[in-house]
Amino acid sequence: MNKLTVVGIGPGNYENMTVRADEALKNCQVIVGYNVYVDLVKERYADKEFVTTPMTQETKRCQMALELAANGKTVAVVCSGDSGIYGMAALLYELRGDATAPEIEIIPGITAACSGAALLGAPLTHDFAVISLSDRLTDWTVIEKRLVSAAMADFSIVLYNPVSKGRPEHLRRACDILLRYLPEKRICGIAQHIGRDGENAKILSLMELKDAEADMFCTVFIGNSKTECIGSNMITPRGYRDV
Amino acid sequence: MNKLTVVGIGPGNYENMTVRADEALKNCQVIVGYNVYVDLVKERYADKEFVTTPMTQETKRCQMALELAANGKTVAVVCSGDSGIYGMAALLYELRGDATAPEIEIIPGITAACSGAALLGAPLTHDFAVISLSDRLTDWTVIEKRLVSAAMADFSIVLYNPVSKGRPEHLRRACDILLRYLPEKRICGIAQHIGRDGENAKILSLMELKDAEADMFCTVFIGNSKTECIGSNMITPRGYRDV
Repeated sequence: MNKLTVVGIGPGNYENMTVRADEALKNCQVIVGYNVYVDLVKERYADKEFVTTPMTQETKRCQMALELAANGKTVAVVCSGDSGIYGMAALLYELRGDATAPEIEIIPGITAACSGAALLGAPLTHDFAVISLSDRLTDWTVIEKRLVSAAMADFSIVLYNPVSKGRPEHLRRACDILLRYLPEKRICGIAQHIGRDGENAKILSLMELKDAEADMFCTVFIGNSKTECIGSNMITPRGYRDV
Repeated sequence: MNKLTVVGIGPGNYENMTVRADEALKNCQVIVGYNVYVDLVKERYADKEFVTTPMTQETKRCQMALELAANGKTVAVVCSGDSGIYGMAALLYELRGDATAPEIEIIPGITAACSGAALLGAPLTHDFAVISLSDRLTDWTVIEKRLVSAAMADFSIVLYNPVSKGRPEHLRRACDILLRYLPEKRICGIAQHIGRDGENAKILSLMELKDAEADMFCTVFIGNSKTECIGSNMITPRGYRDV
């Protein structure tokens, strides 16, 4: 078939996968991915061939996927969340370059901004910015500039990769920057292990967020100036009630 | 059951719905929504009761849904794309207020940022901002400030509601603002009728975008400084190739 699909599997559980993602994994011959993501789908699609690489081996992983497809296999590259947002879709196009084979199809998935927001309530009903705190591929000065701009323009903000073992202080550093522009009481939220064992959500102030425990399985939400706490939920109104 | 689910149905076709959204629509008694969105699901869930209201009747629609649930019906409120992003989830929580019944469950869906990006290639692999150009509920000065901030901080930008019958000039106005900060050749994309009849995607420069035909079924993407055209795709690299 000489075809490669890039499949956003959503947060990790079958229920949050799209029908289309499920079909693509059922119909492929080889599933390629970061080993943690492949583990999420291994049981359901147990008859497939699996090719995994550890983190930081993205280029090698995508090259292997393209080679398998070039050799006639139907290949699905799995990404957690969406296939595009901080996912592998771009890198596969980059590596294929000006060639037109293998055919590449991008299948979108539920990204953590959406699945995490749903756990917390509705923090993203108005304009928002998505920023990764990982400086492995991006200068921290760029990240800092984006944090400041988003805060000053009153975007709600979603932080991906807020901390990791190698960057334990990044969320705290980001909060210190945001606290120069935003009030200590600004409503924030953390969604952790979305769609997986241990799933939980917590609402807290920006000041509390600075010292909050977080790990690489967390997605962080910072409200805009209108975000409020209603019951146990983080809500950013769009303004329908004011019409 | 006294339960209300807010269901993001994705762009509109069954294939891009999640398993969970499908289950919620199968298991509910009443489907409530804007008539255009209800039409997208009417055939597949034909045995349900349907309650629809036209656009700009969001508060009335959500009040009806809460009343139906309070009267013991299992209700699903459908939103196109995600249930939270410019969707009805927040308004339902706002209207329920401090009450704890009916129970509200938010089911995320594929938002147009993800489904439109997948059609164009992979324009959102790095940090991005999502901005609605509708000034029905938001002052244009706020929209303008966010456009400027996002451009100056080199975010990729996704524009929702780029034009409508009542706002035919908004995309042009936004492009004029962006052109003060971004080069004319900045790579942009338009995704139209995503997941529906007439689905199409187009890549063009920011200068061309200014005069492009667009309607309320379009989602617009503006690349960041690293966005490139590879083959017929709009690609924003994350930087994996540079490691």
